[in-house]
Amino acid sequence: MAFDTLEMPYGTFEYVVGGAATFSSIAASLLTHGVRIVGVVGDDFPRDYLDFLRKREIDTLGVEQVAGKSFFWRGRYSADLASRETLDTQLNVFANFQPKIPEAHRSTPYVLLGNIHPQLQLDVLDQVEKPKLVAADTMNFWISGESATLNKLLARTDLLIINDEEARQLSGIDNIVRAAADIRKRGPSRVIIKRGEFGSLLFDEAGTFFCPGYPLEEVRDPTGAGDTFAGGLLGYVTRHGDTSPSTLRRAMFYGSALASFCVEDVGTTRIAKVTRSELDARIQAFARLVDYGGSLALPAEESR
Amino acid sequence: MAFDTLEMPYGTFEYVVGGAATFSSIAASLLTHGVRIVGVVGDDFPRDYLDFLRKREIDTLGVEQVAGKSFFWRGRYSADLASRETLDTQLNVFANFQPKIPEAHRSTPYVLLGNIHPQLQLDVLDQVEKPKLVAADTMNFWISGESATLNKLLARTDLLIINDEEARQLSGIDNIVRAAADIRKRGPSRVIIKRGEFGSLLFDEAGTFFCPGYPLEEVRDPTGAGDTFAGGLLGYVTRHGDTSPSTLRRAMFYGSALASFCVEDVGTTRIAKVTRSELDARIQAFARLVDYGGSLALPAEESR
Repeated sequence: MAFDTLEMPYGTFEYVVGGAATFSSIAASLLTHGVRIVGVVGDDFPRDYLDFLRKREIDTLGVEQVAGKSFFWRGRYSADLASRETLDTQLNVFANFQPKIPEAHRSTPYVLLGNIHPQLQLDVLDQVEKPKLVAADTMNFWISGESATLNKLLARTDLLIINDEEARQLSGIDNIVRAAADIRKRGPSRVIIKRGEFGSLLFDEAGTFFCPGYPLEEVRDPTGAGDTFAGGLLGYVTRHGDTSPSTLRRAMFYGSALASFCVEDVGTTRIAKVTRSELDARIQAFARLVDYGGSLALPAEESR
Repeated sequence: MAFDTLEMPYGTFEYVVGGAATFSSIAASLLTHGVRIVGVVGDDFPRDYLDFLRKREIDTLGVEQVAGKSFFWRGRYSADLASRETLDTQLNVFANFQPKIPEAHRSTPYVLLGNIHPQLQLDVLDQVEKPKLVAADTMNFWISGESATLNKLLARTDLLIINDEEARQLSGIDNIVRAAADIRKRGPSRVIIKRGEFGSLLFDEAGTFFCPGYPLEEVRDPTGAGDTFAGGLLGYVTRHGDTSPSTLRRAMFYGSALASFCVEDVGTTRIAKVTRSELDARIQAFARLVDYGGSLALPAEESR
């Protein structure tokens, strides 16, 4: 949970509420009741925002509020929003964060480990009891700097959700298909590789599955889209109550649909306002986007 | 029809047979009988290659062989094969090419206009009688240098097949969805925007459709993949004998499947060897790639 200052091509937005737990829990709460988050905020974090999360039935018992400033990130996006550079990162209260899972939350069945130090991700896993699915994110910083700890995490992860550059870095393999196969040997039986607006690929025991990004007429801010995707995916899995290949495939559509809302406005502005009927409509549009109208079997050639 | 010298990261391949008509006709010939091509070659073009095309029932009556050298292109690919630079282009016999459609071919119902000067594309259209579908390709060179002629062509085109950069340049609009809407106002009721390995988007009266690229473990040479896609698509449409939205959608899968073979080896090496059973198997793999196992409707939440 964090503040982001976003330098967009069309203007700068100061101290916008962000963070993986925020985006992913809002997305999941559209699909399932009783989402639980773990995190830390400073005394500068708006009480109203925590109230807003609770009104969505997001359980904030695991959110510590401590003296000091919340995590802060400042970034600048390129003109086409396809890339960004980090201008400032202040860990603040996050520097000494030790995630504590409340007793009442230890039996949480579906666990999403956001992108933090892999040792903290392992500490969370040590506090939960036999989850049905452990999904995890990570980033270039931990891949290069904490590979031994990250390998321990991978051995305990069921579903790794990373982007294509991270997959290449983690495996040392340029080709995405072979990179995913390599990563699956290290622990996660399922790997999802995100490619931004170009969609995402799932590699699991049933084979390879592709879910497109939803083509939008306007994108305002990609921040949090990946966390929204992961939160929506886990929300759908939790609602469905199983982790079968077909459930995961449909869950990717929900994650992708929610991510497509997320990028329509700055920070959590849009995702916080999405209604169930808006989501249903976009899911229907998504179904049309991939509907090829029946069988792909080759018709007999007409005589001409 | 051309010779390409390809400087790949793993070696240089001199005077490989290429050209849009070559790739697209080979792809189409896997799906329909009696593909007809129009083009020009020099006296250096291998007779064996023309014989090979004829053995595939590709009608080469419209291929002129004239004194001089065939069109030649030399390019160098980047290490990841994602981009290339042109090192040399020699028009040779192509410089004075005037496409002539043989009398027996003037009633061809499905027409694919490869990427040449838009005036030559118009000259071809003037020689065919009421085709059921006119599909066209173009490139940055004509978009910037021959916009008036290109606009005339667009007015007579039913299906424009271009890549994302060309769509942006043609429309002056960065966003792909809005770029496609703009282009559709200029003539083509259907626009397909290709995004290389990331798949392709169709915009037509039925809405928006997405067809992924097939994830491959190894890509050797992207040259001709776009032409193979277009040829496979037109071949499927010809076989099916209609141009409905659902036919076009399924046709994109065939185009994409054939393009995925094309890139597996240098030039036409791989696409020339693809068998119907290999194509069927890849189409089945494609169907699994996008199969989300039923309805996307949201299940009722289990009580927990």
